[in-house]
Amino acid sequence: MSTPDINYTRSMSRWQPNARGRLEQAALELYHERGFDATTVTEIAERAGLTERTFFRYFADKREVLFWGQNRLREIYVRTIEAAPHAAAPIDAVAAALEAAVPTFHERRELARQRQAVIAANPRLQERELIKLASLASAMADALRGRGVPDPTASLVAEVGIVALKTAFARWVTAPDDASDDHDLAQLIREALGQLKVITAGTGA
Amino acid sequence: MSTPDINYTRSMSRWQPNARGRLEQAALELYHERGFDATTVTEIAERAGLTERTFFRYFADKREVLFWGQNRLREIYVRTIEAAPHAAAPIDAVAAALEAAVPTFHERRELARQRQAVIAANPRLQERELIKLASLASAMADALRGRGVPDPTASLVAEVGIVALKTAFARWVTAPDDASDDHDLAQLIREALGQLKVITAGTGA
Repeated sequence: MSTPDINYTRSMSRWQPNARGRLEQAALELYHERGFDATTVTEIAERAGLTERTFFRYFADKREVLFWGQNRLREIYVRTIEAAPHAAAPIDAVAAALEAAVPTFHERRELARQRQAVIAANPRLQERELIKLASLASAMADALRGRGVPDPTASLVAEVGIVALKTAFARWVTAPDDASDDHDLAQLIREALGQLKVITAGTGA
Repeated sequence: MSTPDINYTRSMSRWQPNARGRLEQAALELYHERGFDATTVTEIAERAGLTERTFFRYFADKREVLFWGQNRLREIYVRTIEAAPHAAAPIDAVAAALEAAVPTFHERRELARQRQAVIAANPRLQERELIKLASLASAMADALRGRGVPDPTASLVAEVGIVALKTAFARWVTAPDDASDDHDLAQLIREALGQLKVITAGTGA
């Protein structure tokens, strides 16, 4: 219990800089190499050079490594919708919200790619991703209602925003490194919203 | 094993008319009364006056009672998109598909209502419902690709169709019985598509 090694590990676990980032990187590598189901928290901590205790200080379980960003996104979306100019159309408030979160994606493009590959390989994680997107749509719809946008407009606008995000994100995350046009997620979101406008313009209703 | 009662039950289980409908009705009643998790297949069969063996002839498990309609919907959607006139815009092919399934909802409005209440009370069933909708969107996108519609248009149109369906369905299933205007799901779908057109028309892209 009191060998120097263990003390060293403990103190390391408490003071490591960027422990969250290192755990995330280690987890994504292992999920990719061995599959999500076959990876243990012990292995993640080991690969990161940290302790399990440190892992659990940042993440409730190994799935949360892939989904902790959801709260950050929700916060950005809700705050941006709340702060939109009074006269802004609901769709513009949602577009502004989606764009406000773009820097957090751009900072993490390589991690986002790895994460996407892990999720694509695991149906249960795909389901979790659907739930995440539905929950973000629901938070945006609530924020719109808070601005006085009535239903069904509030929920339709929020859902359309998530459809645009999903489509733009899929393009952004799979773009080859030399496709510089596809590297700006904000531009891809605007394009998706433009395509949705063209698509729905044809309906007779 | 060979009492008259059991023989009667057995022969009944094999020849009961509308066994699926009776099991479905019994299941929905019990899910509503006791909750989905607390209900057993034994209880469902008993309430329907049928055997467990009959239950499993129609449904893999108690959850499937709520989701078996998914295959029927997928078939209608895919067939209608495939059969749409060559010149039809993708959004019109999807609108036609959504409307083609309306009679199957209208036939079952009361069951649809009960089902919706059961799902609203259970987060895991809500998740399953999200997966069902994502799978229907994906089937429609595939059918559009089969008509030569490129991506991202194919997936955007399919996703927009599902957003319209969800919104229209929520209104239809919760409409009070005297709100006759909200009783036509086809009309509500057209309205939702019209609202999506108005909403996206505002985007600058």
